[in-house]
Amino acid sequence: MDLYIDRDALARGLARVQNIVERRSTQPVLSHVLLFAQGETLRLTATDTQVAYVGELAANVTTPGELSVDAQSLHAIARALPEPTVHLKLVAGQRLEISSGRSSFKLPGSPASHYPPLPAFDVDGRATLEEAALLRMVDQTSFAVSPDDNRYGLNGAAMHSVGGDRVRMVATDSHRLAASEAVFDGELRVGARRLVPRKALGVLRRLLDAGSTEPVELAFGDGSMRLTRPGSMFWFRLIDGEFPEYERVLPVGQPQHLIRLRRQELVELLKRVGILMVAERVRAVRFAFDAAELTVSVSSADRGDIVESMPVELEGNPIVAGFNARYLSDVLEVIDGEYVTLALGHALAPCIVRDPERDDAFFVVMPMRLD
Amino acid sequence: MDLYIDRDALARGLARVQNIVERRSTQPVLSHVLLFAQGETLRLTATDTQVAYVGELAANVTTPGELSVDAQSLHAIARALPEPTVHLKLVAGQRLEISSGRSSFKLPGSPASHYPPLPAFDVDGRATLEEAALLRMVDQTSFAVSPDDNRYGLNGAAMHSVGGDRVRMVATDSHRLAASEAVFDGELRVGARRLVPRKALGVLRRLLDAGSTEPVELAFGDGSMRLTRPGSMFWFRLIDGEFPEYERVLPVGQPQHLIRLRRQELVELLKRVGILMVAERVRAVRFAFDAAELTVSVSSADRGDIVESMPVELEGNPIVAGFNARYLSDVLEVIDGEYVTLALGHALAPCIVRDPERDDAFFVVMPMRLD
Repeated sequence: MDLYIDRDALARGLARVQNIVERRSTQPVLSHVLLFAQGETLRLTATDTQVAYVGELAANVTTPGELSVDAQSLHAIARALPEPTVHLKLVAGQRLEISSGRSSFKLPGSPASHYPPLPAFDVDGRATLEEAALLRMVDQTSFAVSPDDNRYGLNGAAMHSVGGDRVRMVATDSHRLAASEAVFDGELRVGARRLVPRKALGVLRRLLDAGSTEPVELAFGDGSMRLTRPGSMFWFRLIDGEFPEYERVLPVGQPQHLIRLRRQELVELLKRVGILMVAERVRAVRFAFDAAELTVSVSSADRGDIVESMPVELEGNPIVAGFNARYLSDVLEVIDGEYVTLALGHALAPCIVRDPERDDAFFVVMPMRLD
Repeated sequence: MDLYIDRDALARGLARVQNIVERRSTQPVLSHVLLFAQGETLRLTATDTQVAYVGELAANVTTPGELSVDAQSLHAIARALPEPTVHLKLVAGQRLEISSGRSSFKLPGSPASHYPPLPAFDVDGRATLEEAALLRMVDQTSFAVSPDDNRYGLNGAAMHSVGGDRVRMVATDSHRLAASEAVFDGELRVGARRLVPRKALGVLRRLLDAGSTEPVELAFGDGSMRLTRPGSMFWFRLIDGEFPEYERVLPVGQPQHLIRLRRQELVELLKRVGILMVAERVRAVRFAFDAAELTVSVSSADRGDIVESMPVELEGNPIVAGFNARYLSDVLEVIDGEYVTLALGHALAPCIVRDPERDDAFFVVMPMRLD
């Protein structure tokens, strides 16, 4: 292998693999990135065997070849090199020589044959959707994934067709639920739920571009999923678990109490409420909804009291309910609109939060009993 | 106590006390800030009994009074309040009511009589110097303070008069030493060393303003030290320990080898060298100084090799020496000039680093044996 490549392009390409490789693996090769040079391309492959990424970079290849080296070291070196062009060369002893200006590094490498092969799989479902729309689904649901649940199916977000041309991503930790939809083109069996694991969601959030309306292709099959964009491919294993039948617990029909309020005003209010609750995040905060005013209060002998109020519009009778303030804040952060609505059946029934201007996402927060 | 105060001024004043109070003390009152309102002033006092800060803020005081409350909570509240004016009021049960717009907090407080009193002391030395000059001395020496040495006197920086109108601050961990001087006005006994502890150095770095040429007053006495600026006072206990007789180990006379080089170029070079040394910071890096070139190299079977070079000017014969690259980087970061000089007697003698344009600071890095 012998090639010249643009330093900044190499550094950007290597940045994308940093969250995929395992830094503290007992198998050193899992902390490596595989380099494969041929024609006008340097291909980077990274995997921890659960998640894999393949990206292609333009390069001036003199001698084709391949080897793997430590991904973190190569990234740090690429970012620090003094000149805009980098020379990569395979030298004696499976070492990669990296030179630029008056700097010369040699990294120990491994033969490509030692690198874990990427699995092939039979495709049994396809969906093409806008890059930004996929990212929006991931952003609007990731926060509700359970951090480490022994109900295995809760450690990720479920993707499934909801009929028509809509695909939904949904996540829950059983205290709150987030669902977000996008328009897709392709073939997805209605009802089949694909469970995207937490790590894959994190990688998608960093990989996808919120400004891109380009199509991305998703392919499902054999317990894994593949995402293809021009110049890059991302593969990950799906969770082999059961996602709850959440549709059954969603309230139907008109809510008894429908509240409309300015989203940002409630965000600021909840930030202040949070100050006194640093040490006790699961405490119920009292939300009293009157015809024109919401009064939020919480009291602690140790930490102090707070009373806050803000204007709201209420359809239905006044109602008092307890909420984990953090759960409401999380939802408000992933909604863009100026207003949100809260729909309540009674004080202990699921509260549905929506942007009244959009029908492609909804959020559920379970109330808490007030002492 | 009943007063109105500007929200942002209160938040800035409380920001200054956050590094002084103890957050995890067994005595809750040490996590408090003492508020004392009188005339046109709200005075904030914070102490952990080793370090104390007193700051005065303009306020519209209706009823004078005092109490202490949790400093971190009050700071977080002040920053988050919705309106630019804050109303502070002592209410029943030693509680501080904080209101602004539609927000109202009540924090539990303690009577001022429970707050640790600030010690008075007999002054036996005084120095007045420019605020920015004092900060420069602290910035140029703090990095060399030993992180946690059982030689008690090394856990801080020594301040002493060097005769004439110069005061010097000096710190060492026995592998490297940093000394920085400033012009002062006042009375300091030559030879008396005042050991400023690590925490006080950290507080000074945050408190002092690099852009200010205003005078600050230092007063020494009874094992403690006081710094006074208009509107604020900072007191701290000095270390009761012995600082080494470092003057004896400083090389005298003309060095055998004097190297002059561009500071920023060496900084960048050492950053690249550091990439492969993350896990082994104490390894000796090889520095080969030739008539016109410095070649830096380090080799590790596990992590890889690096060779770097840059132009230098050398007076004397070529020399090869080993250094901890991190120690050199630390020194280069606190020097401002375009060039630095390195003066070496022989490969294992102390290396003196200076800005050739200034005589008010010098740095010593001990070489390491190369394997």
